[in-house]
Amino acid sequence: MEQLTIVKIGGNIIDNPAELEQFIADFSKIEGYKVLVHGGGKSATKMAKSIGLVPQMIDGRRITDQPMLDVVVMIYAGEINKNIVAQLHANGTNAMGFSGADGNLIQSTKRNHPTIDYGFVGDVQKVNTSLLETLLKNEITPVFCAITHDKQGQLLNTNADTIASELAIALSEVFKVTLTYCFEKSGVLYDAEDDTSVIENINKELYDRLKTEGAIHSGMIPKLDNCFNSLSKGVHKIKIGHHKLLKDNNALCTSITL
Amino acid sequence: MEQLTIVKIGGNIIDNPAELEQFIADFSKIEGYKVLVHGGGKSATKMAKSIGLVPQMIDGRRITDQPMLDVVVMIYAGEINKNIVAQLHANGTNAMGFSGADGNLIQSTKRNHPTIDYGFVGDVQKVNTSLLETLLKNEITPVFCAITHDKQGQLLNTNADTIASELAIALSEVFKVTLTYCFEKSGVLYDAEDDTSVIENINKELYDRLKTEGAIHSGMIPKLDNCFNSLSKGVHKIKIGHHKLLKDNNALCTSITL
Repeated sequence: MEQLTIVKIGGNIIDNPAELEQFIADFSKIEGYKVLVHGGGKSATKMAKSIGLVPQMIDGRRITDQPMLDVVVMIYAGEINKNIVAQLHANGTNAMGFSGADGNLIQSTKRNHPTIDYGFVGDVQKVNTSLLETLLKNEITPVFCAITHDKQGQLLNTNADTIASELAIALSEVFKVTLTYCFEKSGVLYDAEDDTSVIENINKELYDRLKTEGAIHSGMIPKLDNCFNSLSKGVHKIKIGHHKLLKDNNALCTSITL
Repeated sequence: MEQLTIVKIGGNIIDNPAELEQFIADFSKIEGYKVLVHGGGKSATKMAKSIGLVPQMIDGRRITDQPMLDVVVMIYAGEINKNIVAQLHANGTNAMGFSGADGNLIQSTKRNHPTIDYGFVGDVQKVNTSLLETLLKNEITPVFCAITHDKQGQLLNTNADTIASELAIALSEVFKVTLTYCFEKSGVLYDAEDDTSVIENINKELYDRLKTEGAIHSGMIPKLDNCFNSLSKGVHKIKIGHHKLLKDNNALCTSITL
């Protein structure tokens, strides 16, 4: 099987033009088949505010109502996605920007929760693996924003981490996939306050122990659950760390194995 | 050569949800290879106003400054493009939405005018015909918004009519192309006030005569110049009319020939 690298970048890189520029240069140097998934950053919230939208919250959770969906679609699929694509081309990467609606690449269903109506939020149902394989083999680097659709005309706001892991799982049928989550820290930390306390290797056993001990908690739990789920479904390798690990093979980061 | 249908729709269809829905249903019924190019409509101007942008005009011409470029990218490539793509899928068309930056499908250069700085406006330089052919032969229907790039990282606002005609010219190398411009009237009119006065066939000779007589004037002149240019460069057939002509072969419209 040929190698495929999937990289997910979060909003903190999107919000920092110098970081983003460096990331794009580093990502462009990755050899072989690759896919980029990007989060949203703060510009959707900023735009929502500037047009007078009031964020809808239920039980402390953000709800994507129709006006907010319009904003995330224009910012994620429009402004952010197209600027990243243009900058990748300037760096020699033949990028093509996608939402899940394009080519029905990622189809989802509107979240159906027993007590909370999340609004226009999508849970991924299926990935169009064969079309993605065709694009990759035609030397295209897909760049995904976190918008999907239900194939019935409705766009849906979707978690970018989940998109990255669903793409990784689906593409593991045809490629040996390495999935890298880039964020502002150097990896999963023993001590959240100490950026040098990176756990370099974590497997399911250590993960369970660190959860029990309370060293791993809150936002890191769904992220890691996602990773172990992806590994159990065929993804070859998962790394979490700062984007400098893309160019520096020796950079500190967390490798996750089953 | 196989047939390819390229349809361009203007802002008036985009701005009218019922018209757009009908158009999407009709476009979806076109058989064979097809491409859609869409204009912008009023939502970019509305968005610009609501975030407090003041349109920049020089000598009566609208200038695309950086804040306005951001708005057109988010509205054209984001909101409008992705909603059209999602609705096309609901109608059974395997649509994929593009700006010219995606896959470097349409590369342009920033307009260089001796006296007016138009800002971030692009003049089309080249179309990636081979990639478009690959996409079409993989049963993808490309949907273009009127944004291009210079391959050096800069997105550029570009005239949608020109994009349609440049795509038609480039794809005429590999397809027998029919280009249809859909707008609010039934075709090119002898009398602008009378929608039944459609000139059903117009060739270069008649065009020159009608220009001299003043029957064809103002905005229709660059549109028709564009058409004759496209025909002279290999486009098989060009029609101008209301989008009902997509489903009704007998609908009144203007056919343009050399």
